[in-house]
Amino acid sequence: MRVLDKPYRSIWLDESNPTVVCLIDQRRLPFDFVIEKCTSLSQMAACISDMHLRGAPLIGAAAGFGMYLAALDWDGLDRSYFKSAAATLRATRPTAVNLEWALQRQAAVLENCSDSKEEIKEALKNEALAICELDVTTNSRLGDHALEVIRKIAEKKEGPVQILTHCNAGWLATVDWGTATAGMYKAHKTGIDLHVWVDETRPRNQGARITSWELKMEGISHTVIVDNLGGHLMQNGMVDMVIVGTDRTAANGDVANKIGTYLKALAAKDNSVPFYVAAPSSSIDFELADGGLIPIEERNAKECSVVHGLNADGEYADLQIFDPEVRSINFGFDVTPAKYITGIITEFGTYEASRESLAAVKKERDERS
Amino acid sequence: MRVLDKPYRSIWLDESNPTVVCLIDQRRLPFDFVIEKCTSLSQMAACISDMHLRGAPLIGAAAGFGMYLAALDWDGLDRSYFKSAAATLRATRPTAVNLEWALQRQAAVLENCSDSKEEIKEALKNEALAICELDVTTNSRLGDHALEVIRKIAEKKEGPVQILTHCNAGWLATVDWGTATAGMYKAHKTGIDLHVWVDETRPRNQGARITSWELKMEGISHTVIVDNLGGHLMQNGMVDMVIVGTDRTAANGDVANKIGTYLKALAAKDNSVPFYVAAPSSSIDFELADGGLIPIEERNAKECSVVHGLNADGEYADLQIFDPEVRSINFGFDVTPAKYITGIITEFGTYEASRESLAAVKKERDERS
Repeated sequence: MRVLDKPYRSIWLDESNPTVVCLIDQRRLPFDFVIEKCTSLSQMAACISDMHLRGAPLIGAAAGFGMYLAALDWDGLDRSYFKSAAATLRATRPTAVNLEWALQRQAAVLENCSDSKEEIKEALKNEALAICELDVTTNSRLGDHALEVIRKIAEKKEGPVQILTHCNAGWLATVDWGTATAGMYKAHKTGIDLHVWVDETRPRNQGARITSWELKMEGISHTVIVDNLGGHLMQNGMVDMVIVGTDRTAANGDVANKIGTYLKALAAKDNSVPFYVAAPSSSIDFELADGGLIPIEERNAKECSVVHGLNADGEYADLQIFDPEVRSINFGFDVTPAKYITGIITEFGTYEASRESLAAVKKERDERS
Repeated sequence: MRVLDKPYRSIWLDESNPTVVCLIDQRRLPFDFVIEKCTSLSQMAACISDMHLRGAPLIGAAAGFGMYLAALDWDGLDRSYFKSAAATLRATRPTAVNLEWALQRQAAVLENCSDSKEEIKEALKNEALAICELDVTTNSRLGDHALEVIRKIAEKKEGPVQILTHCNAGWLATVDWGTATAGMYKAHKTGIDLHVWVDETRPRNQGARITSWELKMEGISHTVIVDNLGGHLMQNGMVDMVIVGTDRTAANGDVANKIGTYLKALAAKDNSVPFYVAAPSSSIDFELADGGLIPIEERNAKECSVVHGLNADGEYADLQIFDPEVRSINFGFDVTPAKYITGIITEFGTYEASRESLAAVKKERDERS
């Protein structure tokens, strides 16, 4: 999507030097737009673990490129080197499903290669690029289906379609388009009048910092709100639909997503506001019977008491917003029960959040893979 | 309640010099505990308007003392001076119901006084003290009824009673005891094992800053959480009851309280967690048929994008947490429909959130006044 009127992806090969992987350092957004140039496995591993980039699909793409960068430094002799490179990448964000998936794809590529360093470099590069293309295509298709949902609302009302979203399931969490945002970008491009309510999404404020920046760069009208506000907006007819991403969706349609998603789903239900989840089929875990089985990550509680931003001198700084001696707790996700979800939008279409309906997604996925 | 093991009220007359009104400057809590000494009407007016203190009952008490401080500087001749003093105080927080109520009480006192400056000073001082006592007694009685609710839960479970609260309806919003907190303090004093989940309460973080500080000073176990977390806790059986305050309750039991309260009520309902509102009868507006008629204050949106706390040097500072060019909106309150409220706890007892039941509160209040 666009940054300062130029199209970007969140990760790409440098045009003038294809041994350099470029990525947007997301830590300083929205205040600084910095492109980081990665030239080694260790640098890429640090980018992932230190969260220069985040978002499951993007982490997968970064891991794919990480294996390619590793190949550039291979001695051409010892192929166990690649196992060790994969282990380095795996250790950066051990719970990220897409990371493991990308590493397995690169492992399969390696198995089909001879010992030629050139062949290996080329094959790993091409697979990394293919992982990116697959993500972009998936999100774009998902966006086409989300666009239909938005279009139907637009056809029935005067004024902008009012969409509420939580956290960042935007293009910066993927390679391009995003998941929850893909339909918004497509709707905006086709001239549908939109306004997006962006939950700031405490504790890490990905909505206020990243989703808002994405929308600004694409010229989509939006308003950043505290997480407490969405219920009031829905009670007062100020939200036409909610759309969020998902970290993992169970086979019965229960959705794990950023903490606080569940509260918005309850408010949507209470006010008859449709609540959609943008879920690439890869994020649906058909092995998990229901949402109660989804492990919920507990993160460092310091994320709650220390915030980041610009100080009075315009410098990037930390601020302690409550007593550091007081206990806090920081669960990263909650589970929204399927019964509160109007539809799950995948790259194959929009499905009911039910075991029967999602079984059709599995069928589509299995047939195409 | 206690601060550093010494009992305090939020506002009081200096023991050694009764022409000095002392109050706790709440702006720097929890990082600094500062007692401010007020000696003039203008100083008290600034304390109210600049939010050295806040909370409707406390604002009322402060206005009462403001009229007393005004009397100290009266020339003894022109009684219209007191009308002008009242207007000065009224302008500090024009929508605060208790402020107007306190000013009317002091106006009635003045009407019964001769032109003797000594008599007027004494009468206004005594009325200010009476306003404080009335608040303390009301909250203490409310707390007795809340204690019964907590005790019943304690009797049925092992381990601490887990209470979730939102914002600060604590003793620092009143003269003492608080409303939502009164039952907690009474329960703790009687040896009931408690743990309180304190919503940070964006955008102004009164939970993280003030409620947490109150509980720490009283030695009550608690955890500060982001506003997004409460739903997940309730889904996982980690909350036994919710108790919140109210800015205004309609005659049918709809409750206006700090933005985000409604979302917690929905989660409580969804998980069969009892949801109580601590409402002194003075906060129930029997003129308002339902919550839809309660005016919702829209505050400066800058409260969302700029937070306050301690910087790396341990100095109190502001931090811009998202792009100041991006639009935000800041409604201060939302309305929780009566159907989601288990009970409204007043100084007369605990009532159903219904028109019929609250009519009994009005009857009690009218009979006693």
